[in-house]
Amino acid sequence: MNIKLVLKLVGRILLLEAAAMVIPMAVALLYRESPLPFLYAILIMAACGFGLSALPAKQQFFTREGFAAVGLIWIFTGLAGALPFIFCGWFATPMDAIFESCSGFTTTGSTILTEIESLPKGILFWRAFTHWMGGMGVLVLATAIVPKLGIRSHYLTQAETPGPVFSKLVPKQSQTSKILYQMYFALTALEVVCLKLAGMPLYDSLIHAFSTAGTGGFSNRNASVGAYDSVPIDIIITVFMLLFSINFAIYFLLLTKKWREALQSDELRFFLGVVFGAIAIITLANLEVYRSIWQSLRYAAFQVAAIVSTTGFGTADFVLWPQFSQLIIVLLMFCGASAGSTGGGMKCSRVLLLLRSIRREIHRVTHPRSVEVVKLDGKLVSESTLHSLLVFLGAYVTTIFAAALIISLDGFSFSVSFSAALTCVSNVGPGLEMIGPSGNFAAFSGLSKAVMSLCMIIGRLEILPILVLFCPSTWRRT
Amino acid sequence: MNIKLVLKLVGRILLLEAAAMVIPMAVALLYRESPLPFLYAILIMAACGFGLSALPAKQQFFTREGFAAVGLIWIFTGLAGALPFIFCGWFATPMDAIFESCSGFTTTGSTILTEIESLPKGILFWRAFTHWMGGMGVLVLATAIVPKLGIRSHYLTQAETPGPVFSKLVPKQSQTSKILYQMYFALTALEVVCLKLAGMPLYDSLIHAFSTAGTGGFSNRNASVGAYDSVPIDIIITVFMLLFSINFAIYFLLLTKKWREALQSDELRFFLGVVFGAIAIITLANLEVYRSIWQSLRYAAFQVAAIVSTTGFGTADFVLWPQFSQLIIVLLMFCGASAGSTGGGMKCSRVLLLLRSIRREIHRVTHPRSVEVVKLDGKLVSESTLHSLLVFLGAYVTTIFAAALIISLDGFSFSVSFSAALTCVSNVGPGLEMIGPSGNFAAFSGLSKAVMSLCMIIGRLEILPILVLFCPSTWRRT
Repeated sequence: MNIKLVLKLVGRILLLEAAAMVIPMAVALLYRESPLPFLYAILIMAACGFGLSALPAKQQFFTREGFAAVGLIWIFTGLAGALPFIFCGWFATPMDAIFESCSGFTTTGSTILTEIESLPKGILFWRAFTHWMGGMGVLVLATAIVPKLGIRSHYLTQAETPGPVFSKLVPKQSQTSKILYQMYFALTALEVVCLKLAGMPLYDSLIHAFSTAGTGGFSNRNASVGAYDSVPIDIIITVFMLLFSINFAIYFLLLTKKWREALQSDELRFFLGVVFGAIAIITLANLEVYRSIWQSLRYAAFQVAAIVSTTGFGTADFVLWPQFSQLIIVLLMFCGASAGSTGGGMKCSRVLLLLRSIRREIHRVTHPRSVEVVKLDGKLVSESTLHSLLVFLGAYVTTIFAAALIISLDGFSFSVSFSAALTCVSNVGPGLEMIGPSGNFAAFSGLSKAVMSLCMIIGRLEILPILVLFCPSTWRRT
Repeated sequence: MNIKLVLKLVGRILLLEAAAMVIPMAVALLYRESPLPFLYAILIMAACGFGLSALPAKQQFFTREGFAAVGLIWIFTGLAGALPFIFCGWFATPMDAIFESCSGFTTTGSTILTEIESLPKGILFWRAFTHWMGGMGVLVLATAIVPKLGIRSHYLTQAETPGPVFSKLVPKQSQTSKILYQMYFALTALEVVCLKLAGMPLYDSLIHAFSTAGTGGFSNRNASVGAYDSVPIDIIITVFMLLFSINFAIYFLLLTKKWREALQSDELRFFLGVVFGAIAIITLANLEVYRSIWQSLRYAAFQVAAIVSTTGFGTADFVLWPQFSQLIIVLLMFCGASAGSTGGGMKCSRVLLLLRSIRREIHRVTHPRSVEVVKLDGKLVSESTLHSLLVFLGAYVTTIFAAALIISLDGFSFSVSFSAALTCVSNVGPGLEMIGPSGNFAAFSGLSKAVMSLCMIIGRLEILPILVLFCPSTWRRT
């Protein structure tokens, strides 16, 4: 393991993060708040960043280093991002600040804050800004960097996998990243404009656009998006949450006028099927709660989009819905968004391939001599890709239950422990019962918050890069 | 599909079941209770059985027919077994009777009865006897019949799989079945003797030995095994529950003095590790509930054995334990017993192979060029076996959540809906909250009870044989 080079990379990212922190500091100054929390954080990060990036290191960089770097970068970014929270004095413990920062960068959106609106505007801006940076990081990581590493296909966005993959569409990585940045920036800007036109203040529009873009879920209002109680705002955010949970390669296909290829994506069709199916069922199931079918549809549509995109905004408290609707919400948390988007969860393409593998297994029983293959977008999915995918799903569920086991030490109900682990690994935000859309994560112990923070990063990096860090052979010298 | 031959087989099994029902009828007569519920049931079953087995059918029997026969036999056995319950008048609805019968034959042990001790002795005898027959059915199916069908390895007990497999130890199927019957019978008789010596009445000893042998869990006492409050009885049943959840091929190895081979079984070691690990952790976690460490150990050991063996007897109500202990119980429900035993769940060998597959996947990241294989008992597990196993685990979890979704229509909490589906698919018995060891399944709707009955059969037959029945191509003429 070339640990020096890995640390050098971590140092560079810390410098970038320090530079990004100038923006919330400017916001704090604009609102005549103290810039000191940010200034202190920037100084610490700059010192560490310069120190680490000055390390002399050989340019040997293999898969192992790639995984370790990705894992460590996310952990250190989360820790450093907590510095302004710690210095501002609004967080009870440093662990609370770290939880909030990890929740931000991993675009989870779970919060330990009980009274959001009292916080300084600069701090709330930084909180939402971590979502935006985290979303961009994941997008570039999953669609531009990982496919180039030549590693086995834990990411469905990898080159050998069928389906629209960015690295196959655009040959150069620098070019890929640039196009991604531009699309991400343009969509965010468009959402800010739409929200402003719908009557949201500019500051709030920026916060909610950042949160939507990263499919995070932090709001500057206690009641989340529900605070505005505006149909146009609900519709705008619903649409953008869905837009940010579609594979960005599809936008590229649309931009290059490859309409047919874009619309033939199995994952897109499955995603839309899940979204509209869930909205229809929940709308009907919730009729006993709401006065009219339109009201039921409004809240169902927003909440389904919020959960499946793993954003986690709230306009209605789904904890008060019928249990049937809540179980659909739980299933949507597992499923999550599309591969190659900023959304989390298992990803629709994986769920689709699991279902197709099960169907093939059933067919094999009735036709034992047939050689059937599993396809995606009409192309064969290799058996080794399927194998990795199935192991990934096994590791996903195992991680959730292992985390729930530790969280259960706090003594909350099974629903709370399980949904806390699920919502963190899937990067959604809210869970069931006391951690629902109107609740928060303040009541958990420091240990649980640490486990949940780790779960968010494990989920965000799709399990393996973090598990690799715990493997002794990763650290052995070569 | 040679449907006539399949129905002919169903008919023969119904005749066998009718013959078996003479025993509880004799018990009823012995206790001067009405034999009529059994007599009516026997007449109906005999009529249907003779009718079906007289069908003229070609002797074409392929894998498809095998799966369909296994699925239909279990469904019809469950339905026919409900007849005495329906005729005795102690069950509120026919669906309740069917639930109880399916719970019996699948050796699940979930009950809808609220006041067990008032029921006639003949009926309670039949209830426990279904466990014993179900256990024998599963044992012979999984260790003698399925490995001979030459189908892909959904069962880890299949010939191509590593580990001690009966069909590899004894060449002839009739011989295999005979040895299995003898061992099953001997172990049951031994338990009856032990329980009788420990002071349990003979009738109760028979009931509890039948329940333990099938890893079912029906008791003739409202408080289950807790009603006797006897340390020797607790120890005897704990030991036998564990004995019945070990691969029966291991007993055969011991009988033929192949000690080394028997003790080298990875699954056995893993199973014992899980059992003793869980007992140790729960004993410590429950110290706040019990007065002494010995009392804590006593209840922890019994309950861990009851859950991991998927028997489901109760001496303590684990719903009142700390949430941490309850979550371990949930994990044990997933894991279940060993392959080739009468126990249910995913099976230890599958969980072990999943963990090994995850470990291999992590190793592959750090050593991308290494070709690593997954082994069991020192022998290579083929990639196609691993693939089937992973798909099985995916189908298992998917089935649980799909069932929980329908059950949630009843409006009970997520913990109840989820644990109800889990406990039924894993054939355990009790669940969380209101369906814990002191609770019952009476409060659910008819739809939920139907879904749960189906889940028990789906779980018992390890998913595929039942899913095959829902597949249109199974029924197409060839």
